[in-house]
This record gives sequence, structure tokens and C-alpha cells, in this order.
Amino acid sequence: MDLNDVKIPEKVVPSNYLQLGIAALRCKQRQFKELLEKRALPENGWSDDNIEELVHQLSSLDSNNFPHKLGLGEREARIACRLVARRHYNFGHGIGRSGDLLEAQPKAAGSTLLARLTNALILDLMHAIGLPSCSGCFLVPMCTGMTITLCLQSLRKKRPSAKYVLWSRIDQKSCFKAITAAGLEAVIIPCQVQKQALHTDIDLISKKIHDLGADNILCLYTTTSCFAPRNCDDIVEVAKLSRQSDIPHLINNAYGLQSTDILRHLERANRLGRIDYFVQSSDKNLLVPVGGAIVASFDENLLNDVASSYAGRASGSQSLDVFMTLLSLGRKGYQSLVKEREENFNYLKDRLGKFAESRGETVINTSLNTISLAITLKNLTKDSNGSKDITKLGSMLQLRGVSGARVVVPGQRKVIDGYDFIGFGSHHDSLEVPYLTVAASLGVKREEIDKFLTIFEKCWQQLNQNHRESAN
Amino acid sequence: MDLNDVKIPEKVVPSNYLQLGIAALRCKQRQFKELLEKRALPENGWSDDNIEELVHQLSSLDSNNFPHKLGLGEREARIACRLVARRHYNFGHGIGRSGDLLEAQPKAAGSTLLARLTNALILDLMHAIGLPSCSGCFLVPMCTGMTITLCLQSLRKKRPSAKYVLWSRIDQKSCFKAITAAGLEAVIIPCQVQKQALHTDIDLISKKIHDLGADNILCLYTTTSCFAPRNCDDIVEVAKLSRQSDIPHLINNAYGLQSTDILRHLERANRLGRIDYFVQSSDKNLLVPVGGAIVASFDENLLNDVASSYAGRASGSQSLDVFMTLLSLGRKGYQSLVKEREENFNYLKDRLGKFAESRGETVINTSLNTISLAITLKNLTKDSNGSKDITKLGSMLQLRGVSGARVVVPGQRKVIDGYDFIGFGSHHDSLEVPYLTVAASLGVKREEIDKFLTIFEKCWQQLNQNHRESAN
Amino acid sequence: MDLNDVKIPEKVVPSNYLQLGIAALRCKQRQFKELLEKRALPENGWSDDNIEELVHQLSSLDSNNFPHKLGLGEREARIACRLVARRHYNFGHGIGRSGDLLEAQPKAAGSTLLARLTNALILDLMHAIGLPSCSGCFLVPMCTGMTITLCLQSLRKKRPSAKYVLWSRIDQKSCFKAITAAGLEAVIIPCQVQKQALHTDIDLISKKIHDLGADNILCLYTTTSCFAPRNCDDIVEVAKLSRQSDIPHLINNAYGLQSTDILRHLERANRLGRIDYFVQSSDKNLLVPVGGAIVASFDENLLNDVASSYAGRASGSQSLDVFMTLLSLGRKGYQSLVKEREENFNYLKDRLGKFAESRGETVINTSLNTISLAITLKNLTKDSNGSKDITKLGSMLQLRGVSGARVVVPGQRKVIDGYDFIGFGSHHDSLEVPYLTVAASLGVKREEIDKFLTIFEKCWQQLNQNHRESAN
Amino acid sequence: MDLNDVKIPEKVVPSNYLQLGIAALRCKQRQFKELLEKRALPENGWSDDNIEELVHQLSSLDSNNFPHKLGLGEREARIACRLVARRHYNFGHGIGRSGDLLEAQPKAAGSTLLARLTNALILDLMHAIGLPSCSGCFLVPMCTGMTITLCLQSLRKKRPSAKYVLWSRIDQKSCFKAITAAGLEAVIIPCQVQKQALHTDIDLISKKIHDLGADNILCLYTTTSCFAPRNCDDIVEVAKLSRQSDIPHLINNAYGLQSTDILRHLERANRLGRIDYFVQSSDKNLLVPVGGAIVASFDENLLNDVASSYAGRASGSQSLDVFMTLLSLGRKGYQSLVKEREENFNYLKDRLGKFAESRGETVINTSLNTISLAITLKNLTKDSNGSKDITKLGSMLQLRGVSGARVVVPGQRKVIDGYDFIGFGSHHDSLEVPYLTVAASLGVKREEIDKFLTIFEKCWQQLNQNHRESAN
Repeated sequence: MDLNDVKIPEKVVPSNYLQLGIAALRCKQRQFKELLEKRALPENGWSDDNIEELVHQLSSLDSNNFPHKLGLGEREARIACRLVARRHYNFGHGIGRSGDLLEAQPKAAGSTLLARLTNALILDLMHAIGLPSCSGCFLVPMCTGMTITLCLQSLRKKRPSAKYVLWSRIDQKSCFKAITAAGLEAVIIPCQVQKQALHTDIDLISKKIHDLGADNILCLYTTTSCFAPRNCDDIVEVAKLSRQSDIPHLINNAYGLQSTDILRHLERANRLGRIDYFVQSSDKNLLVPVGGAIVASFDENLLNDVASSYAGRASGSQSLDVFMTLLSLGRKGYQSLVKEREENFNYLKDRLGKFAESRGETVINTSLNTISLAITLKNLTKDSNGSKDITKLGSMLQLRGVSGARVVVPGQRKVIDGYDFIGFGSHHDSLEVPYLTVAASLGVKREEIDKFLTIFEKCWQQLNQNHRESAN
Repeated sequence: MDLNDVKIPEKVVPSNYLQLGIAALRCKQRQFKELLEKRALPENGWSDDNIEELVHQLSSLDSNNFPHKLGLGEREARIACRLVARRHYNFGHGIGRSGDLLEAQPKAAGSTLLARLTNALILDLMHAIGLPSCSGCFLVPMCTGMTITLCLQSLRKKRPSAKYVLWSRIDQKSCFKAITAAGLEAVIIPCQVQKQALHTDIDLISKKIHDLGADNILCLYTTTSCFAPRNCDDIVEVAKLSRQSDIPHLINNAYGLQSTDILRHLERANRLGRIDYFVQSSDKNLLVPVGGAIVASFDENLLNDVASSYAGRASGSQSLDVFMTLLSLGRKGYQSLVKEREENFNYLKDRLGKFAESRGETVINTSLNTISLAITLKNLTKDSNGSKDITKLGSMLQLRGVSGARVVVPGQRKVIDGYDFIGFGSHHDSLEVPYLTVAASLGVKREEIDKFLTIFEKCWQQLNQNHRESAN
Repeated sequence: MDLNDVKIPEKVVPSNYLQLGIAALRCKQRQFKELLEKRALPENGWSDDNIEELVHQLSSLDSNNFPHKLGLGEREARIACRLVARRHYNFGHGIGRSGDLLEAQPKAAGSTLLARLTNALILDLMHAIGLPSCSGCFLVPMCTGMTITLCLQSLRKKRPSAKYVLWSRIDQKSCFKAITAAGLEAVIIPCQVQKQALHTDIDLISKKIHDLGADNILCLYTTTSCFAPRNCDDIVEVAKLSRQSDIPHLINNAYGLQSTDILRHLERANRLGRIDYFVQSSDKNLLVPVGGAIVASFDENLLNDVASSYAGRASGSQSLDVFMTLLSLGRKGYQSLVKEREENFNYLKDRLGKFAESRGETVINTSLNTISLAITLKNLTKDSNGSKDITKLGSMLQLRGVSGARVVVPGQRKVIDGYDFIGFGSHHDSLEVPYLTVAASLGVKREEIDKFLTIFEKCWQQLNQNHRESAN
Repeated sequence: MDLNDVKIPEKVVPSNYLQLGIAALRCKQRQFKELLEKRALPENGWSDDNIEELVHQLSSLDSNNFPHKLGLGEREARIACRLVARRHYNFGHGIGRSGDLLEAQPKAAGSTLLARLTNALILDLMHAIGLPSCSGCFLVPMCTGMTITLCLQSLRKKRPSAKYVLWSRIDQKSCFKAITAAGLEAVIIPCQVQKQALHTDIDLISKKIHDLGADNILCLYTTTSCFAPRNCDDIVEVAKLSRQSDIPHLINNAYGLQSTDILRHLERANRLGRIDYFVQSSDKNLLVPVGGAIVASFDENLLNDVASSYAGRASGSQSLDVFMTLLSLGRKGYQSLVKEREENFNYLKDRLGKFAESRGETVINTSLNTISLAITLKNLTKDSNGSKDITKLGSMLQLRGVSGARVVVPGQRKVIDGYDFIGFGSHHDSLEVPYLTVAASLGVKREEIDKFLTIFEKCWQQLNQNHRESAN
């Protein structure tokens, strides 16, 4: 509503009072117009009210919200429960159409606009934080693993006879299941162990390419962000192999957007080699609820293949979350989160190092992992009954409110979809010394780190004391 | 909070006043307890306030909402934007774990509980509306097409060498793409045309099984709800074939829960033959925003195979929508929606029939389709330039607020993932007479039908007049 | 935002999809413009979303919501708690200014506009429901009693030497306290009892005017809506006296807007006599939370005197409630509530009558009371210990969920601000037969009446049985 | 709901996962219990979710929210518009009863509890911030002026023959109208001017008491917080006079809770003399929307007189705002707001002083005013046409977003309710030099002060230039 067009008599509101208000309104409307026209992430975050107003405007453009609509089809985006309608701001039509996530919907101009704006804002964010060469991306309302499956499925359409996926081992179930879900055959490349830290075995990948034949290999599949002491894969070298042997390269960049180091590797790998897709979760990188992933590429044309492999239309809920979050943070807000995280990672590393030193332990040197850290636990239970007690450390921490710390002990084994993983959890077959991993991920507060260390110390003492007592 | 445990002095509130309130609170708490213990759909819908209170209680059980939590992992369900947190009632962890949609999450007892309650309520609803033999179901936070792909992927794990999917043709892109997405080969079984209505070609399916060999066939894939003049597939006969030849049978029951006829067919097909999975969308059947599907089975054990094929954890947003909607409607509320829909379908059929009669057209007799109707358009443009003008009818209706009515004309063709569809849109190769389809789906109001017919009549007259004028 | 001014490229949203949405937006904006320009109550209720959008637009016009505002004053409408800001839609400045409720606020064009729109909508409603001669009204964010005090205070400014308020007795504390709060002297005019029903004693009023001298009387003060068996005051005759003797006439029309009978009396009293102000509560007549009253007059000029007697600026919360409620109901919505109430009153009267007959009781004939009914309780406890048991009936009903039913027994007495009320509760000094009053007020459902009667009957039987048992 | 009482099988949620959640729930419930039992302001602010949960619990205790309630009365707190119900958390019954704001409501135990908790939390806050002797207070849902009227009315009940209110002049309309609204006669005590600053004329008050006779004086009425260059009244000396002459003393402490200086004066005045009531606005002191005031006393018994002078029941909306705000801030949150304000006041004073010095102006020395400052404007327009141009400064500031800065020029005059105020706006009859007042009130940010000074400087230059140009 343009209030300048509305005739409000002086006796209702004196026009000089009203004009001040109208000027403020106009300012807001310029902001909206600019967002829709430039589709760039605002420098500063928006107020909640402005975000909600724009979202409401967009949902008004969907046919289910037209005042006089008559629904004679099988899907009319009727919403039975008004709490549900409210929490979705009356969006009901989802995104995409007939098996293409990037197609516009005739019934839902607002949903379409929202989804495309969201993708544009994410791309703008990527450019801003260290991926200037990224040429396109879009949000998929499925988890990272399923989105990787989607990428594999779309690669298969172009390489129907290629069966094998060469995968640098990482012990995280859904990464691996992404391969089997697509009905493909995984070729597992174990990591190389160097002073307890794990590195990509480039030579073995190279050898496997030669052995299996490039034409039989659907893609090389690497991982950046991971639990220490595994390092980020050497994606630069893998990208070179990919280019040389003309095999697609798919990267699981699960929570890598929050690390400027990883982003630098991605840019470099693209410059010196080949990356087809890199996939990241929206929850871990953008602090929204679980449920979405972002497929990105340095070649925009490759994205349509993935989008058109999604069989149906999809939830728009994840787009809405990301849209509101990005507008709320603004570019500065996100960048300051990233900066804070990196400082906190260094802080955690420093404090954990001092703790390790005082106990005769080591923080394993994983210089290619800038999110997660592993500290050895070799002395914790040396006079006790070993891994049983060490495992107890995990639940002790959890009971005290620490979530996300993981204790890894030797001798675990797991079979997933017919593949046998020796030493499961440690990313390789021959773990000797147990360890604890902790991460400094986006949003972590220094206060959390301090409290964690206090609790860790207490648990350590208690366990040691128990051992001594039971030893006597 | 149990207010009886709280000592509130008489001078603050007289205890006889307070006791009346506490009695009312207790009544609400009993309702909550019963829901959690029996996990049965309430007879009557709940108030919005009660629904929100329970949802808030559940989300308090997730670790991201613990007052003193310390997050040292890579995924801590932090939510950056408070509008997003609010619309998700602070749920952030999603559902499922490490590649199994049905696994519980250690960090998220509330999310887990919500997801399982939702699945239990859906099952209870199914039993109530006409599927007493259904033994299990769960909500997948992906569209129907992708969920069918997931079913196909899980079937493949058990029949790795079977390539073919025998599919009774229906011209809806994502149904078909569900097959190619899984990297499988579709064997298209055209429908039989009888007086313009389309029926399943059982003999041809039978012949193809024989020709291709049962072991090479991954499954038979049928569809119930569809646009007229295609009928619901003859799932009883296909189920018999499935049992006889020991081939799994997968049913796309996209919006079939709203039709008691289709439910009767499903029960019968299960009794006389075999159904492995039937999949339905949550949006069309339960009136929630697009984004979820329900996999159901008459054999509960089969469901874990599907759940464990999802590579990752998934959005809990769809569960929340369905949970709130089912509590809001209650069993009676849903049943009265179904009843109203069936009355409105009959009303639409009746009025459309009269209209057809008056214009020399026919409402095609599709007695196995109780949701959608097709009316021929042979006279609309007989003295004009044909299909161009007929297509115009579609946009004329849309401009007047009618959504969901589709005009189908002969001669369309479409290639999808390498498969060539002649007569696309009409489900068979040889359409002669154009037609219009309309549906009476869940939530349609009689008023909408009346207004649609008025508009349809006006458009018809206008088009006819245009023809006559342009003819002169 | 005018989306037609925004350049959105075809590739972002196809323009034909977008145009449908823009047309719908325009339709909504026309609705807003019309409301602001005509300030008339819409025929049909608005959707929640439209109401909230308009309210948000209005609050954007207040200076505390300007993006770049600098607050250097002592009152800047900062809101510390965002839950509070949210529930007030960011309105903080209240209404009125420096001791005049009807003045505009320079800092708050939006609040001013909202308050004036609300008053205009209320006036429009009054015209529609049966008060075409009402020439002005405004909402006061205080209860009815305090608003009556405000009217008395403003009358005193014009008649400083007049001390007495002639008040037709009604046993409702705050009606009476409204006089003492203003520091005035009440002259109580007892009601006349005719067959247990109570009527205004016109002759006594007339006599008192003569005795005290018109110049010493500040005003005549009558009441319309009240508990049976008191009738609506004979406001027509009092209005005539008022005109004849040139004494202001103030009417407490507490919940009278819901009764077309009372409205008819008001119109007639104004035509044949004099009414200065009539005051009604917003909660009982408009179904909003307690907290506001409406001062109305047949002479618009009189209203400014009252508005300028309010010492300060006032809460805008009540205006917001009424504004949203009236838009939500629309004229038709309110009228159908009124119609439903009158039908339910007749239904209650009828059913209560039959019950009375069967028990040898009477529903007292109070034809000038069309909201409340009184049924005698003379036989309930005739063989028992009387009023003690009768009082028990009240709490029995309350425990069973019945609120608002009142048992009145002889022999009560109360002193209020020095005035002694014999027979308090019954509006006169000499009550003989106890009775129960119940009302059919706005929003009551037929179902409530049915359940009440069932419960009433049960309680009656139980009490009677107790008596018989204790008699034996 | 006590989840420990609910039997949730292991297969639904593993009990060790659930127990962690239940422990967190219990922690929250302890917080609620403590609040209800101790009724003390929490040290730390609560989360929005916890606040809303408690508020919802309380509103469940009101009869209008009972699931099976039958409303047969005239006021049943039905709420027609669900947006309204939602924003009031379903509270509808208001507070107080039959003309006593502090009485409990039989139908509304929740509203009663909320109102009393709110009053207790305010009292606790007062104790914490510097008023340990305050013995009681309650929130009145009317503005400060009307609440002062209410206090005057309740004093009159005890001193019916006393007519005069001795009032130390302050040029703020509603302060004065509070007297005339009550029908009392104001005796205006002009301030004494000392170097442009204004002080209470104690001698004149003393003389007037003598002249009029203590028995004829209803009360002494002073003001603390005010616009510079008026100082806070010398309430200690007035309190002494009050005690000596046995005349009640009423203090308008409008926005004085935010100043620890004023609180110190209040405590001292009470110790050395007499204060009956001191009244403060809830909006300015607690940052809630306009609409409430707090009556406080050092003698709890005096409060009932005021509460029982309110004729009717009142809005509970203001209590809800204050309740949520206090819980949200906690004691620490409020105290840090106060501290920040005092720092910002000193900062503003300092910067304004430097500005004044550089222009040959003075910041008037008002050491008893620690909220507002006045800077002379004698040089701004010395070569120009005087006050007309100076007034322009006000609107120039406003147009640039500055609100709350007031320009005061000599020669204004205003008649209010028959009293003639010479030099209106300046609190005395003989203003010579124009000035500008600005305040640092609760919630002001240093950034606002900086921006204001930049704008002020620019406006000054522009006005000076205009003068020079027009002079040439």
C-alpha cells in the first residue's frame, strides 16, 4: 500500500506527523526492492519485522493465498491446521516442479521467487567468504548424504556404464551410504597414517584409476570437513587426478563453509584441477534446523543435471529457513560468526594442548583440519581395564552437559551394506591409542570451551582416582 | 509444573479459586499422558494452545534446548535466527541418525519422540479410515517421487541383479523419474482404452513378466489416484500377478488416502495378492505444505529396509506439520473431511454431467476414479482452429481464479530421460478428443464447485462466440 | 512495496506467473486504502493475515519504529522485551496526548491513526446495529465504572456547584463506586417492586429533583443492562425528566449493545428526551479482554469534554483489540452474533420456564430485561435449613463448570463507601423469595444452555434429596 | 506434565536419551515453582520460551480457558478474534473485582496470580535498585496522571473537607490536570530561579500551609523527574513540612526509578519526613508500552485505599507486559540498563558542555536533575528574527530523526482548566533566554548521543548561515 496514494484527512492525522512515518515506510520499501532486483546478500542484517513482512508479501503471490481462488486440482496447497499455516507463513506449494528443483511453478510465483532469491543469496555469501569462482549453487531440501546420492545419480545419467566410486575413507555412515543408496559400488581408499594423523592416499587413488579403468569409474569422492585426527582430503591433488583422467570429482564439504582454510583449498583445487560438485549441509554451515544441503559448482551448467534428477517437487521449508537466516545475519553477521569460530578454534587448540602436555598426552597434529581436534588418551587408564573405562569418559561428559565430544577406542568393527569396516570410528584399520575428539564449530562460545575444559579435567581426575582405588 | 506441589499462600490466590484451575490443568495433562502412552489419534481435535504446549514440551527434551548445554561437536543444532527457531518450536536436530530414518537420536529425545508419535498417529488414522491391515508406516521428509526412488533403492539391495521396473503408464513426470533417478530401466505398460477411459493392461504385464523373466524384474509399479480419464490401476489383479511370480509390488498411492474406494482396493489387493509398499504424499492427503510422503506396508518388517536406505538424518519439519495437523483435526475431523470430499465429488460429477449433456459432451465414464473427472471438449471449437483455442480455455480459467483444471489436447509429445512419450498428458498414444479434467480433492468446498461451473460456462460461451465471430 | 515497480527478470519468475500474484496483492491493497479513506466497518470480516499486515503497516508509522531514530526525550517508547513488542505489534506510544484522549501524537502517526480508525469503526457499528442517531463515540482504555467517573468529572467542570447524582439503584459495586470515586454524593432511588420484578421509580426521581433543586443535581444516572429481576431502567421517562429539568442524563449501558431492545429504547429516549452520555464496556459487547469502555453521545460536541478530562496519555492496547476484532468479524459477523444471542435468550427463557413450571417455580416476568433471567427458588429447600442450602446451589453449579449463574438470597447487607445497602444483591430492601439469575450474553452457545439445564436439574435433585435425607 | 509419570516404552525412545531431557525439564519446573513460591525477581533473565510457557500455564487457570466451561453470566471473557486471544495469551478477565484492583477474581485464578506476582516482582525490583524501605506497590492500568487522580480521590475519602492541593509548578499538562480531574483546587507554587535553574520554593509552601490552614489542604504534591532546567523538587524538605503539618504528601515520580539519585532522595525524604504515595509510569521506567503506572508507598496499609477507589475491574494487559519484561530482564538486566543510562547521561552532559562552550552557550547547572539537560540558545539567532528561527531548530532536528528534544522560547502562555500559565513550558513566569532540553533516559544508546550531536551541530551551522545570508 502506498500511503501517499491514500487520502487521509488532516483531522484524522495531521499530515506533517504522517509524512515522517511515510518517509520511514519508503525507506523500508526501497530495501525490499533492492533485494528483489539485485538479489544480493545485504551488508547488515534486517530486523525481524522487515523479514517477516517481506516473507508475507512473497507468500501472498502464491495462488493458495489468493482471496478468490477456486481449487479444482488434486494439489491445491490447502493447509488444514492454522498453526501449520502460520509457521509456514502460508507457503504450501513447495519448490520445483515435475521433477526439476529449479523449475518455476505456475501456481506459486511467491514460492518460486523465494527459492531463487535464497539460492542467489547463498551464492553471494559464498563469493563473500572466499569462493569467488563458485558459479552457482542451490539448496536441496534433503540432507547432505541424500544430496550426494542425487549428484551420483545425475552423474550416472551421463556415465551409465561407470560403476565404481573411489572414496577416500571417512567413518561417517551416511557419507558411505550415499554410494550404496545410489546402487553403486564403493572402492574404499584407506587413509595413510602419519604420526597418528590421517592423510589422503593419492598414490593409491592413482593406482586404482589405472587398475579399474577411468571409464568404469563414476567419480572420485572426497571429504573436507571431518573429525580429527583425519585431515581434510588433499582435494588439490585429487582434483588434478580428476582432470588428468577425465573422471568427475565430487566433494563432501559437509561443514566446510565455516572454515576459510577449506575454502582456500576448494578454490585452489578448482584452479589446478577439477571439481564437479561440492555439497554442504545447510544446518551446520548456516545454523538452521537439519534438513537441507547446498550443491555448488564452479560450472553453473552442471547444476541443472542435479536439479532435474529430483523426482517431484520439494519442501520449501528449508529455503525459507535459509532465507530468513541470511537476511537476519547479513554479510557482516555471517562473517563475524566465521571469525569468532576461528578464534575459538585456536583457543580450544591452545587450551587442549596445555592440558595434554600436563598429562603426558598429545593433541594430534592435524594441520589440515581446522575444525576438529583429537587428544590422545593413552595415560588415562594405563593401570586399569582399558577401553571399557575410556568409553565411560564419553557418557560422563554427556551427563554433565557436554555434547559432541567423542571417545574413539581401538578394536571397533562395523559392516555397512555389506562392506566391512575394521577399526570403525577411527577411519583406518589399525588404531592403537584411544583418543577424544572435540570440535569448535560455528556458533560455539568461548564460555562453552572454558566450561568443557573444567568438566574434562574433573572427569579425568575422577576416572584416574577410580582406577587407583580399584587397583588397590 | 504440578501446581499442587507449589505452595501458593491464600492471600496470593484463595485456594478454592485456584483449585478450579488446577482441576482444569490436570485434565489437560491427562490428555498429554494418554497421547504419549497410547500413541493413538484422539477422537476429537485439540485446541491450538494444547498442541503448542505439547510441542514445546517435546522440544525441551532436545539437547540444544538444555539450559546448561556445552556444544563441542560439529552439529549442535544451533539456530542463528530467532524467527526460524520460533517457527520450528526450537527443534533443530531433525529425525533419524546416521543413515536410518527410524533410529533414535541420543541428542534429541524430543525430536525422536515427535517423529515416532507422528508415525503412530498416521498408522492409527489409516486403520480408522479403511486400512485395518496396514501394519506400519512412516513419514519420509521427501516428496512422493523421491520416496518411491528410495523404495526402489531398498528393493535393489535385495534384488541387485533385477533391472526392470514394470510400470503402468501414467503421464506425470515425477512418477516416471522416480525410476530413472534410481538408475533402473522402465518397462512402460500402456493403458487400454475402453470408451475413452483408461484401464490397466493386465495381460500385457503378465506377458512382460514372462518375456523378461521374473528374476530380472525389480518390481511391478502401479498407481491408484490419477487424472481422469485414466482409472485407478487394477491393483488387485497386479497384486495377484506379484504374488504368483514372486515380484515385489510397489504402489504410488499419491493422493489415495482421501478415497475410501481406493482404500478398499488396497485392502483387497493385499488379501488376494501382494503389496510391498504403498506410498502417498502428506500434502495432498493430510493438507500440510508440500514436502513429505508416507511409506506404508502390510508387512512392518519391510519398512526398516526403506528407512535405512536414507543416507543421513532428515528434516523433522514435515513430522511436526503432520503431528500438529492430526492433533488439530482428530479422527472425527479427518473423517468429516473425507466425507465432505466424497459428497462434493458426487456433486461435481452430477453438475458436470448436466453441463456436458447440455453441450453435447460427455463426462467420460471412469468408475474406478473417484477423485478426478474428464469432460470431453469436442464441440467447443468444432468450427474453429481447434486445439489452439481449446488450450486458451485453460488460461481463461486460470485468470478467473480457477486452479487445477487441465486441458488436454491430442498430439503432445515429450521425451523424459530418453524415453519417448507420444500423446503426453493423456496417458496413451492415441488421444482423439480433447478434454478437460477437474478434481474434487480433500478440502474442496461446494461453493468452489458452484463458482467454477459458472465461470466454465461463461468461458465456454465466450470461446464459442469468438469462433462464430471469427468465422463470419 | 509496489511489485510492478520492481524489475524481476523473466528467468527469476516468469512474468505471467507473477502477474497473477500481483493482481491478488493489488486487490488487498485496495481493501486497505478503502478502509483508511472511508473508515467504515467492512461488510465481511478480514483474514487474520490481512489484519496483521495492516496493523504492522500502521505501527511502522510510529517514530519508535523508524530505522534511524534517535531518542533524546524522556519517553521514547522503547520496548525492552521482544515478546512484549511482538504482542503489541511494536506499538508503544499509546493514544492521546497531554491530557486529551482524542489528540494526535506527533511521535506516533500510526497509533493516532489506529485509535481514530477504531473509533470510526465503532461508530459505524453502532449505526448499523440500531443507533442511527448516535453522533460520536470513542474508546476509553478504562473499565466502564472509571469511564463513568470520567463522565461525571467532565460534567462537574460545567456544573461545579452541583453535588448530587440521582441514581436508580442497581446492586453492582462499581456502578455505585463510580459516583463516590468522583467525590460526589449519591442519591439512591430504590426500584419499585411489581410481582417480584423491579422497575424505575420515576415519581421518586421527579420528587427528588424538586426537593434537591435541579441546580444542585449533577446528573441523573440510569442503567440499562442488568441482572434480572431488575429491568432496564425506564430511560425514556428519565430522559424526559432530564430534558424538562435541564439536568444531564448519563446512562450505564454496560452490556447493552448486544440487545436490540435496549438500542431501541436509547434511540427513543434521545428523541423524546435527553441523554448526554451512554457508556458501555468493550469486553462484554465486543468480546475483547476486559479493559475498555466506549463513551457515546447523540451530541458529538459533548465528547471532547470527556476526552480532555483524562489526565495523560493512555494505553493503545484496547484500541488494537477492538480494531482487530471488528475487522475480523465485519458487520455481518457482529450482526450474526447478535442474532444468535437473541435466539439463545429466547431458547433459555423457554427452557427455564418449562423447568420452573415443573417445579412450582416462576421465571420472573421481566419483559424489559432481554439478557438476564431470574427463576425463583422457593421450593428448593422448603423443608430444609433455607438459605444456607440455597447458597450451596451456587458452588455446586460452579464446580460443574457453570460460571456466571448467581444465587440471591434474602437478608444480605453491605456498606459501600459509607452507604448502607439492605438486601444487597437484589437491588431492593425487601427480598422475600430467593432466586437464581442466568444470562444469555453475546457468544453463548445453545450447547452451553442445554448442558447448563442438565446440570441444574441434577443439582436440584441432589439438594432436594439431601434435604429429605437429613429430614429423616 | 510430569514425564516421569508417563510410561514411554524403550522402543519409542531409549530411556537414557529421555532421562537427559527429563532432567532439563525438571530444572525448568523448579524455576517456575521458585518464582511462584518466593515471588522474587530472578537474578538472571529468563528465556522467551520459559516466559511464554509460564504465562500460558497461568492463563490455563482462568475459567474462560477451562475445556468444559459453560458461561451463563454477563461477562464470560469470551474473545471473538483469535489474534486478540493469542496476543493476550488467552487472558480475558482482567484484574481486580467490583471496584477493588487488589481483590482476587473467583473466575480467574490465573489472572489474579499474574497480577500479584507482577506487583511482588516490582516491589522486589524497587528494593534492589535503592528503595529498601518501600513497603508495597501495585500496578494500575492507567497513566501516571490518572493514577495520581486516583490517589487524590482516595485521599479525599479520608479528608472530605480538604479542597486544596499545593503543587510545585511543573509545566506538563497531565500532572496538573490530575488535580482538576479530581475536582480539586490547585494552589500553584512557582519555582525559584537561581542562575536559570529552578528550585522548589519551600518557604512559599510553608507560608501557604499557614495561610490556607492544614485542614483545608488535601495534600502537598511534588515532582521528581522533570525537564531541565527545572530540578527535582526538594522532596526532603517538603516531606518534613508534610510531617510537621500532618498533611499527606504525594509525589509524581514519573520516570524517577531510573535515577539512583532520585531514589536516594525518596528514601531520605521518607526517613526524615512523610510520603504517602509516590507514583511512576511503567512505560518510562520499565520500557513497556504506554498505559500503566505504579503506586508505591512506604506504608503498605495506605495502598488498599487507592486500590479500592478504582471503580470496576481493569485491564490485565499492563501487568502482563511488566511481568514478561521483568522476567526477561532479571535483576541484573535491569540494573545494567540503569548503569548504562547513568553513564550515558554523564557522557551527554560532557559532550553537550563542550559544544556549549564552543558556542558561547551554557549547559544550565541543574545538579538535582540527573536525567534531563538544558542548553541555552542565546547566540543561535542573535542577529536574526529570534524565537521564530529558534523554534525552527526543533522541527529541523525532528526531520533528521531526533525525537524528544524540545526547544523552549520565552513568551508562551496557556490556560488549562481555567488556570493561567505564563511562560508555559519553562515552569516559571519570566523566562528570558531560550533553551533546548534533551534527556538521557533508560535505554538510550551512546551511538544515539553521538549522532544527535552531529546533527545538532549541523542544524546550528545551517541556521546561523541562514541568518547571516538573510542579514546580507
